[in-house]
Amino acid sequence: MSNDTMTPTPEGALAAMLQAFEARLSTIEAKVDAEVAAIKEQLPEDKASIIVFSGDLDKTLAAFIIATGAATMGLEVSMFFTFWGLSAIKKQRLTDGKSLPERMMALMTPASSLEMAPSKMAFFGAGSVMLRQMMKEKDVASLEEMIDLARELGVKIVACEMSMDVMGVKGDELMSDVQLGGVATFLADATKSRVSLFI
Amino acid sequence: MSNDTMTPTPEGALAAMLQAFEARLSTIEAKVDAEVAAIKEQLPEDKASIIVFSGDLDKTLAAFIIATGAATMGLEVSMFFTFWGLSAIKKQRLTDGKSLPERMMALMTPASSLEMAPSKMAFFGAGSVMLRQMMKEKDVASLEEMIDLARELGVKIVACEMSMDVMGVKGDELMSDVQLGGVATFLADATKSRVSLFI
Amino acid sequence: MSNDTMTPTPEGALAAMLQAFEARLSTIEAKVDAEVAAIKEQLPEDKASIIVFSGDLDKTLAAFIIATGAATMGLEVSMFFTFWGLSAIKKQRLTDGKSLPERMMALMTPASSLEMAPSKMAFFGAGSVMLRQMMKEKDVASLEEMIDLARELGVKIVACEMSMDVMGVKGDELMSDVQLGGVATFLADATKSRVSLFI
Repeated sequence: MSNDTMTPTPEGALAAMLQAFEARLSTIEAKVDAEVAAIKEQLPEDKASIIVFSGDLDKTLAAFIIATGAATMGLEVSMFFTFWGLSAIKKQRLTDGKSLPERMMALMTPASSLEMAPSKMAFFGAGSVMLRQMMKEKDVASLEEMIDLARELGVKIVACEMSMDVMGVKGDELMSDVQLGGVATFLADATKSRVSLFI
Repeated sequence: MSNDTMTPTPEGALAAMLQAFEARLSTIEAKVDAEVAAIKEQLPEDKASIIVFSGDLDKTLAAFIIATGAATMGLEVSMFFTFWGLSAIKKQRLTDGKSLPERMMALMTPASSLEMAPSKMAFFGAGSVMLRQMMKEKDVASLEEMIDLARELGVKIVACEMSMDVMGVKGDELMSDVQLGGVATFLADATKSRVSLFI
Repeated sequence: MSNDTMTPTPEGALAAMLQAFEARLSTIEAKVDAEVAAIKEQLPEDKASIIVFSGDLDKTLAAFIIATGAATMGLEVSMFFTFWGLSAIKKQRLTDGKSLPERMMALMTPASSLEMAPSKMAFFGAGSVMLRQMMKEKDVASLEEMIDLARELGVKIVACEMSMDVMGVKGDELMSDVQLGGVATFLADATKSRVSLFI
């Protein structure tokens, strides 16, 4: 649009120009709204997702320290318990109605977090006693207290259904308020999360 | 710009104002395009990246369950096999042309996924048989079926060249269609991913 | 705004229209600035965060290969050493002034990275010698060289204070220039990172 076509401006041309401006304005407004909405859809949210695969006392402690820390910082946290990790959210061991390999698996895995051994220096149970004792002496919350805290803070606790099925873990063996889910449950949270960890 | 300077508007002033508006419009349009492009460059993409370090049957299973789950959900998935994790993508063990420590390493690591033991309850091979049997009873795909599925779904499978070099693993020992790469290969994918895990 | 209300345009109406346009322009400009600023606040930054939980030689090597690789690619890297992982950033073992369980813990954990054993094939020390020898033969930097490189590249090294407290690790036992922090320190970095790993 050059100066000589604009001055002087007949009224009809002026009206057309104003309409063109208005159209451009509306286009930009709509574009900004659409782009912002699309980008926000892709932005990570204030979430953290943790797969708890390990049934080790020390790693499970780390998982709950991170989970409760993140929840305290205002992140929405989800923990997905799979394989040996299920032991952390068990409240009891049941053997009734289980097949032989399921009963064996039940007997060889901890009945609850209280029976879990650390990944190193297990010493047939002494390592767990020692680690718990050292934590107590330094006024660090126990694993069970951290699990309770996580639940109070609204941390989402999901048990992997496929692992339960394969290992023969029944719903009655798990703590109350545990959700059941699959890998899609984890991924739906993880793909929206700022942090995702496999522990 | 106040009312009294605008009314009445001489034609020359009007033309200048319209030009100024047009310039602002063009500036905003350009700014929106530039900002949106820059932001999109920084947004995580629909990708997931997994380092498979462990050579354990159970952890490798978890890695492939997550990888195939993510690929099924439409994510572009890349798996980076390093250290003991290389065993999962081996099709055979070769010892010819290897140094003594390389041969020892070859003999002490699984010849393929079929020889991998779980991280817990290995029981000199019984743990692997038991886990595989329990999966079969519950109609869960075997690790080998999941590896095939991952390949069918287009999951990118990268073998860590440095690990191959250090451990003496030869290209002929790996499954076909495996890409070779280094930590930069992993990071190039991981920095664009919504989820990255070390398993 | 239809044609018949615009042509002919009395000067007062024209001025009002132009003012309305200008207001819309200013609104869009402000909106773009605000939305862009808000989005940038939520975008992941060029950072990577690694929790080093394991005290295994091989996993610690993997952590430093990833950390130095990421730093070389221009990412800001922070490593958070917790539990057994503290061994990697110890320069010496001290027992003076420690309680009995603290002294036991000190004696049962490596005095420094040089004493760390791999997660597999430890063979009471032989595994570590073999792995280090194989790396040397292939001209791969040793763990200690990688730790030095990480520090030269400006990788942020944080020791978990709670782990130090529980395990009785003293500041004098750690390498110089190590920062002390807690889970909040890790999460502050991790929530801004493109990649976060638990190793």
